[in-house]
Amino acid sequence: MSVIVDFSIFPIGKEESVSKYASRAIRVIKDSGLPYHIGPMGTSIEGEWDEVMLVITHCMDELKKDCPRLYMTMKVDCRQGESGRMGKKVKKVE
Amino acid sequence: MSVIVDFSIFPIGKEESVSKYASRAIRVIKDSGLPYHIGPMGTSIEGEWDEVMLVITHCMDELKKDCPRLYMTMKVDCRQGESGRMGKKVKKVE
Amino acid sequence: MSVIVDFSIFPIGKEESVSKYASRAIRVIKDSGLPYHIGPMGTSIEGEWDEVMLVITHCMDELKKDCPRLYMTMKVDCRQGESGRMGKKVKKVE
Amino acid sequence: MSVIVDFSIFPIGKEESVSKYASRAIRVIKDSGLPYHIGPMGTSIEGEWDEVMLVITHCMDELKKDCPRLYMTMKVDCRQGESGRMGKKVKKVE
Repeated sequence: MSVIVDFSIFPIGKEESVSKYASRAIRVIKDSGLPYHIGPMGTSIEGEWDEVMLVITHCMDELKKDCPRLYMTMKVDCRQGESGRMGKKVKKVE
Repeated sequence: MSVIVDFSIFPIGKEESVSKYASRAIRVIKDSGLPYHIGPMGTSIEGEWDEVMLVITHCMDELKKDCPRLYMTMKVDCRQGESGRMGKKVKKVE
Repeated sequence: MSVIVDFSIFPIGKEESVSKYASRAIRVIKDSGLPYHIGPMGTSIEGEWDEVMLVITHCMDELKKDCPRLYMTMKVDCRQGESGRMGKKVKKVE
Repeated sequence: MSVIVDFSIFPIGKEESVSKYASRAIRVIKDSGLPYHIGPMGTSIEGEWDEVMLVITHCMDELKKDCPRLYMTMKVDCRQGESGRMGKKVKKVE
């Protein structure tokens, strides 16, 4: 089942600016090779459920190194029999 | 206090494809004149809290016309003394 | 249109423990007189859209006093012609 | 790393009432043996990241049987070196 996951991650209890932590997560997402879309409040990733969740686990592992508390949000759209939906969705609604 | 709100809205109990409803909400957002960023899982809107919430209320009013049940999600980043952050946030993390 | 809003609020750039900030928001919610349900990851509030959003604005105003950056999430279920749904929803799914 | 995940799941393109689908997911969560808290807008589950994600995957698999499109939301609080936090969090903020 192909999914698109909108994903945000940041530490609680660190600096007020969290962009350097977001950058590290986005580096992990880019390295995964999965299609992604960066927005101002989160990044969307498309793929099979297991592969997307593995990337998110790697993002968490990367930030856990120096962040004792992390907050993440996810919105997931799971749809049977379709892939390459991420670009189409943006075009359709525009 | 300037906010960036990532916003999604769709009906429950209608067709499996919800893009035509999303398009109507995005039309309302565009007409508001506020800066926005459309992503595959939601749209980010930047402005003062009251003006962004007014736009979201208008999106809800537009879809209420023919949708007896609506689901919305919001992620809000409120920060004092800064505006024009939406584009900067994407650049910074990339 | 009656809504149930699941709402979370906390500061970014403060201590790792955010419970004292959550307590202040919950005090505002309790004082509003609207029905609410406290969970480990957020509080659900039921009422008309405008009255729930006013309570959330008051929560934000309360924390803005000493928090230059706030993060909030909301999930909203809007349904025509029904009220008193909050308790029913929990019973139904159990 | 112990996590608390607030989780919602429902189909898009089915009936306006989604409680029977939520009930099936909650059955899966109960059967997992992990601590949980049912609220009007989602269920919180506590455990190690991998075990909580396995339960969520099982919920998705259960609903996929007859739902070609699913929507899920998650809010995740990851904190090192603490467990049994779910009940404490509610008590602290009250």
